[in-house]
Amino acid sequence: MPSLFLDKTKCLTNIEKMAGKTRQHQLSFRPHCKTHQSAEIANWFRDVGVCKITVSSLRMARYFADHGWKDILVAFPFSPLEIEVLNQLAEKCKISILLDNCETLLFLKQVRHQVEFYIDIDTGYGRTGVKSDDLQKVGEIIQGSLGNRHLKFAGFYCHAGHSYKTTTQQERLKIHQKAIKDLQTLKKQFSQHAPKAVYGDTPNCSTQNDFEGIDEITPGNFVFFDLMQRHIGSCITEEIAVAMSCPIAGKYPEGKRLLVHGGAIHFSKEFLKIDDKAVFGEIAEPTNNGWCASSVPVHLNSISQEHGILENCGEFYDRAKIGDTILILPPHSCLTANLMKEFRTMEGKIITTLNS
Amino acid sequence: MPSLFLDKTKCLTNIEKMAGKTRQHQLSFRPHCKTHQSAEIANWFRDVGVCKITVSSLRMARYFADHGWKDILVAFPFSPLEIEVLNQLAEKCKISILLDNCETLLFLKQVRHQVEFYIDIDTGYGRTGVKSDDLQKVGEIIQGSLGNRHLKFAGFYCHAGHSYKTTTQQERLKIHQKAIKDLQTLKKQFSQHAPKAVYGDTPNCSTQNDFEGIDEITPGNFVFFDLMQRHIGSCITEEIAVAMSCPIAGKYPEGKRLLVHGGAIHFSKEFLKIDDKAVFGEIAEPTNNGWCASSVPVHLNSISQEHGILENCGEFYDRAKIGDTILILPPHSCLTANLMKEFRTMEGKIITTLNS
Repeated sequence: MPSLFLDKTKCLTNIEKMAGKTRQHQLSFRPHCKTHQSAEIANWFRDVGVCKITVSSLRMARYFADHGWKDILVAFPFSPLEIEVLNQLAEKCKISILLDNCETLLFLKQVRHQVEFYIDIDTGYGRTGVKSDDLQKVGEIIQGSLGNRHLKFAGFYCHAGHSYKTTTQQERLKIHQKAIKDLQTLKKQFSQHAPKAVYGDTPNCSTQNDFEGIDEITPGNFVFFDLMQRHIGSCITEEIAVAMSCPIAGKYPEGKRLLVHGGAIHFSKEFLKIDDKAVFGEIAEPTNNGWCASSVPVHLNSISQEHGILENCGEFYDRAKIGDTILILPPHSCLTANLMKEFRTMEGKIITTLNS
Repeated sequence: MPSLFLDKTKCLTNIEKMAGKTRQHQLSFRPHCKTHQSAEIANWFRDVGVCKITVSSLRMARYFADHGWKDILVAFPFSPLEIEVLNQLAEKCKISILLDNCETLLFLKQVRHQVEFYIDIDTGYGRTGVKSDDLQKVGEIIQGSLGNRHLKFAGFYCHAGHSYKTTTQQERLKIHQKAIKDLQTLKKQFSQHAPKAVYGDTPNCSTQNDFEGIDEITPGNFVFFDLMQRHIGSCITEEIAVAMSCPIAGKYPEGKRLLVHGGAIHFSKEFLKIDDKAVFGEIAEPTNNGWCASSVPVHLNSISQEHGILENCGEFYDRAKIGDTILILPPHSCLTANLMKEFRTMEGKIITTLNS
C-alpha cells in the first residue's frame, strides 16, 4: 500500500533556508505546523532556534502543547464553542488567537487565563479578517477587549493567501507590497498599543525580500513544498521533501495508462492544472538516497478513492512493470500528510503525527 | 470542532431499500464497505441477511475479517506487493480479488491458500479492467490461472463508474444496458467455467430495474448518499444520511459570507458544480431528530485546510450567529467519512471505523 516518504535532508535544508531568511531580515520565526502536524518535525525547528509555533486548530495546539511547546498561535478566527479547550490550554502555555469581530469578545468573557489576540486582517485575500481599511472595526475590537483583563491585544495577523493564485513574481510582489503597506499603516494608526505585525504564506515568504514593518512570519508549507508551490514559483522540484511511494497494479496500452494504488484517501483530491489537464501528482525519479525530477514529466491525471491513473506515460509506460513501486510528488503536501498520518524517512524510520 | 452526524434511521432505510431491490431481482447482495469503513455499520447489513462484503483494499479486508466477515471481495486489481497480506487473509476467510492482466498471475504463484478471482471488465469507464470485447485477453487470464491450484476463476466484475458523470436516467440507462449486455456476452462465451457476473455502482443500482444476467451487486455509497449522488439523480436530499456539524466563526457582510470551522481535512476537496460554481457542501435544515433540505440552498463555496466559506447566504446570513452550529451535507460521503474517522448518531453514540 502507499506510504509517504520524507527526505529529511531536503526538509532540513528547507527549514534552514527559511530560518536564514528570518535572521537576515531580523524577523521572529513562528512556523506553521499544519503542514507536518508532527512533534518530531517541529523539534527540527527547535534546532534552528525556533521557540514558538503556529497551528490551525485548538486540537493541534493541544497536541503541540503536550509535546512541550509553550508559545502557540492558533491561526483561525476563534470559534466561541471552544472556550473550554482554550481555557485548558491557556492554563499551561501562552496561547494567541485570532479575532475578526466583536461578537466573539462576548464569549471570551469566559476566559480564565491570559490569552493574547491578533486581529485577523484581510488585505485582499477575501477569506476571513477585517478589511485592512476598516479602521473603525479594528478600533471597536481593540476597544471591546479592554474591559477583559485576561485578553491582551498583541497586533495584526495577515495571511495573504491570494498569493496561491499567482504564478509570477510580479503578481506576488503586488500582493506582498499591499499587505506590508496595509500592516504598516495599521501599526502606525494603533501605535499606542505597540502592535506587532504577523505575516506569512509560503509563496511570499519564500520569494520576497522586503519585510519592512513585519515583526514575525508564519509560513508552513515550505517545510515540504509540493507541486502547487512549484507551479506558483516558490520552489523547484528538487526542494520537494515528500513523495508517495505507490505500487503499480495495472498497465493499459490504450492511452499508455498505468494504475497505481494511490488515490483520494492518500493524496487528497487537490489538483493543479498543467496544460489544461488536472494533475493529482507527478512522478519523481528515484536516486540512491531520495529522488529528483523525472526527465520527462508523467502525471497522475485521475484519482478515485484508492485508484490513481497515470495517463500518456510514453517511454515510462514501456519501462514500468506491474509490481514495481514508483514515487509520486503530491500537489498539496499539507493535505497528503494529513491523510497519510505518518512519514517514512529514507533511512526507514517512521515519524508520527497528530493523527497517528 | 466539526463532527460528522449520522442519521441511523435514514441509513437503515437506505440499506433496506437496496436490500429489497436485491430480493426483488433475486440478486446476491455484496455491499461495498469503503463508504462507511465501519464494523458496526456493516453489522446493520447482517440484519437484512447480508453475509458477504466488498472492500477496496487488503487493509480494509483485514479490518472486516477481524470483525467476523468470512467472505470478502477486494475490488481493486490485485497489487503483487501485497501477496503476504493476501496469504494471511486467505488463511482465515474466503477472499476474492480482481485481476485484469496476466503478469499478476506470476506473483500469485506464491499464494498458499484458496483465493477466488474475478476478471475486472471495462465496459466503457476507462479506469481499469480488460476491455469487454477483448475476449482473447480474458481467455489468456483464465487459461493462465488454471495451473495454479489455489486460484479459482469465479467470474466477471464490472464497475461502470462513468455513471458518476451522468445526470439523466437516459444517459445512465445507456451505460447500464451496455454493461449488462457485455457481461451477458462474456458469461455465455466462457460458460464452461460457469462464471458469475458481479456489478454495481450506486447510481445504476439505485435507479435501474433490469439486472438480467447479473448475479451479484456491490454498491456502497447508497448507505449514506451525498450531494453528488443527488446531483446524479440517485437520491433525494432527504435520503442523505450524514451531515457535518460545523461551528460558525465569522460573518462578513461583503458577499454575505459565513466562515465555518470545516475545511479540506473534514470534507475532502471533492466538489460538484452547481450553476457553474464549485460546491463543497450544502446546508441542511435541522429538525427535531435529524435534518431536511434547506428551503433555500446555501453552499460551501470554498475551503482550505480548516476554513470553509459559505457565500451569498442571503436571509440565512441574517439569521446566522457566530457561535451557532450548522449542518452541512457533504459532496462525497466516502471521502468525508474517511477523513472524519467516526460518526455521531442523533442519539449521541459514537460509531468507530477502520481509521478510528
